[in-house]
Amino acid sequence: MSDSDGPLPSGSVIGVLGGGQLGRMLALAAAPLGLRTRIYCQSETEPAAHVSPLISIGAFDDLDAVRAFAQCCDVVTTEFENVPVAALEAAAEHCAVAPLPLALEVAQDRLTEKTFIAGLGIAVAPFASVDSAEDLLAAAAEHGLPGILKTRRLGYDGKGQVRLGPVLEAAGASEAIDALAGSPAIYEALIDFDHEISVLVVRDRAGNVSAYDPPRNEHRNGILHTSTVPSRTPAPCVDEAVEQAAMIANALDYVGVLGVEFFVVGDDSLIVNEIAPRVHNSGHWTIDACVVSQFENHVRAVAGWPIGATRRHSDATMTNLIGDEIHDIARWAHSDMVSVHDYGKTEARPGRKMGHVTAIRPRT
Amino acid sequence: MSDSDGPLPSGSVIGVLGGGQLGRMLALAAAPLGLRTRIYCQSETEPAAHVSPLISIGAFDDLDAVRAFAQCCDVVTTEFENVPVAALEAAAEHCAVAPLPLALEVAQDRLTEKTFIAGLGIAVAPFASVDSAEDLLAAAAEHGLPGILKTRRLGYDGKGQVRLGPVLEAAGASEAIDALAGSPAIYEALIDFDHEISVLVVRDRAGNVSAYDPPRNEHRNGILHTSTVPSRTPAPCVDEAVEQAAMIANALDYVGVLGVEFFVVGDDSLIVNEIAPRVHNSGHWTIDACVVSQFENHVRAVAGWPIGATRRHSDATMTNLIGDEIHDIARWAHSDMVSVHDYGKTEARPGRKMGHVTAIRPRT
Repeated sequence: MSDSDGPLPSGSVIGVLGGGQLGRMLALAAAPLGLRTRIYCQSETEPAAHVSPLISIGAFDDLDAVRAFAQCCDVVTTEFENVPVAALEAAAEHCAVAPLPLALEVAQDRLTEKTFIAGLGIAVAPFASVDSAEDLLAAAAEHGLPGILKTRRLGYDGKGQVRLGPVLEAAGASEAIDALAGSPAIYEALIDFDHEISVLVVRDRAGNVSAYDPPRNEHRNGILHTSTVPSRTPAPCVDEAVEQAAMIANALDYVGVLGVEFFVVGDDSLIVNEIAPRVHNSGHWTIDACVVSQFENHVRAVAGWPIGATRRHSDATMTNLIGDEIHDIARWAHSDMVSVHDYGKTEARPGRKMGHVTAIRPRT
Repeated sequence: MSDSDGPLPSGSVIGVLGGGQLGRMLALAAAPLGLRTRIYCQSETEPAAHVSPLISIGAFDDLDAVRAFAQCCDVVTTEFENVPVAALEAAAEHCAVAPLPLALEVAQDRLTEKTFIAGLGIAVAPFASVDSAEDLLAAAAEHGLPGILKTRRLGYDGKGQVRLGPVLEAAGASEAIDALAGSPAIYEALIDFDHEISVLVVRDRAGNVSAYDPPRNEHRNGILHTSTVPSRTPAPCVDEAVEQAAMIANALDYVGVLGVEFFVVGDDSLIVNEIAPRVHNSGHWTIDACVVSQFENHVRAVAGWPIGATRRHSDATMTNLIGDEIHDIARWAHSDMVSVHDYGKTEARPGRKMGHVTAIRPRT
């Protein structure tokens, strides 16, 4: 896919690796552009498979199935960061892909990710690679406590993590290592931050970059609870965060929407927490508070279209509905100026993201 | 379907008779509510069939096919007013339907429609039933010229109409009657109006009614060109229009969105032009300028959900893309604060509604 390729015309097919709610919202955003969506997923009951007749059922490690899927698409993108790099590479044999496999490689391994970002001169939490209790004790001694031991790969929403208190002895270190069952891990010193913001940056094929105003994110039980714009973060700090997110997108030769989470510490300095090479939960408010949502802008970018306005017309707070909270949706539907989003998942398991609601207010 | 039925739960299926762009936008609006959509259409290439895996292919006069479709749905609605009443009645044998067949009966025949509305004490253009040149001459003598001879059934976007100038003689009357090829017709005196507005009113199962702020509509070649809010119509006149639209919805025991077109004459009095028992082209701006669009509110109403806010957060102008104008969509996609909507139709025939764009502005 070169910069000289024109925008994909009406009727073109965007392939999405993954059938979750992010794929669902991508498909719903692609339709008004006249673009179709083909969903690669494991079952036709997945959220994204409800909103397109073009569905390819297969496992992510079935590369022949991925190749057959890619042959039916004009471009292939991803809706979650743990799509195997080999699957994206297999798709790339048959059509353009965005983002590039590099972005997945970097984001899928916390050690690679932190090393990559630090290599750009951007601050991250002090970290060290940990494969044993001895490594962990050494890392804690070097970078300080408290901290978090995390698996390098496949953790999300607080899974695959062990919190370490202000004191760590040999027994505690062994216990923490055992809890991760031998997975390669990374130690990160805990950051004493004031609040978290995230930058949703979108980059097109030609390298143009835009960003949404970063929301302030609040978590509960390790899962995003609310995202609010404006974040009330000082403007110079916001500008700096946007600039750093753009640097990361440029360094990855990224095409599409990239989420970058930042800790804002007391003196308004920034520390990157992590990146997500995809549309991001903290950007769901853009559906209701912007004329072009993060989902549409991701589709525009991967389809070679110009990036749409990222300016918001309204202030907004998005609240996730986790597990049984989805049953509150009828109450939310009665609320004024609230938009409800039910992902259509059949089973409301604890901790599962089932939907979200967004309340909008006149822009301040 | 009684008022005591609760709202349809997540995963319920809304059946839509018709596969055009209105059905497409209904399906896109149903998904965030967790509701699925089954499209009854003639071909899987129709716009609505691109956004749902649940498709029933059949003719509208194949009542057994309609019945089989309805058996797969929790409620059935329509996306165009010329669905045969018999089809909606067949669907009603198996599940709830909204709107009721009465609304289609009234809207499908201009004579019935005008008689019904006039019977509510609401002003319509002077009209008379016309089946012959003699009837036409008599109608013109009684109600004045210029005027329009229209087929009673199946006309839209200026089709099936003959404009009559200030003078009508026997030969001209015969020619006009011949042009309609024997179709039963209605003569309507031409109204000298200042501008047109339309009320998009939504009524739920319990009879609660809300309305969007009426847009001002401009036409080109008999087809809607732009709809703009606010309309700059005096507030008492807007209030009166909304009240009249609600009266019509109540009289039809209507559930869903009903479009009512009004002529605003020089002294700010109102004349109803026609009604559309469905979501309406002049309400497409609500997708981008309201938190709950006309499409979502139609789905909410037919699914027994509460009506969502009809207040707009932004001013807006919607512009239709007719025929080859769809090829301008790339230019529109570059415009700031403009949302593009391509209906995914494969052939850009002259006069065909291919898409629309909506520009939003801060609310005045």
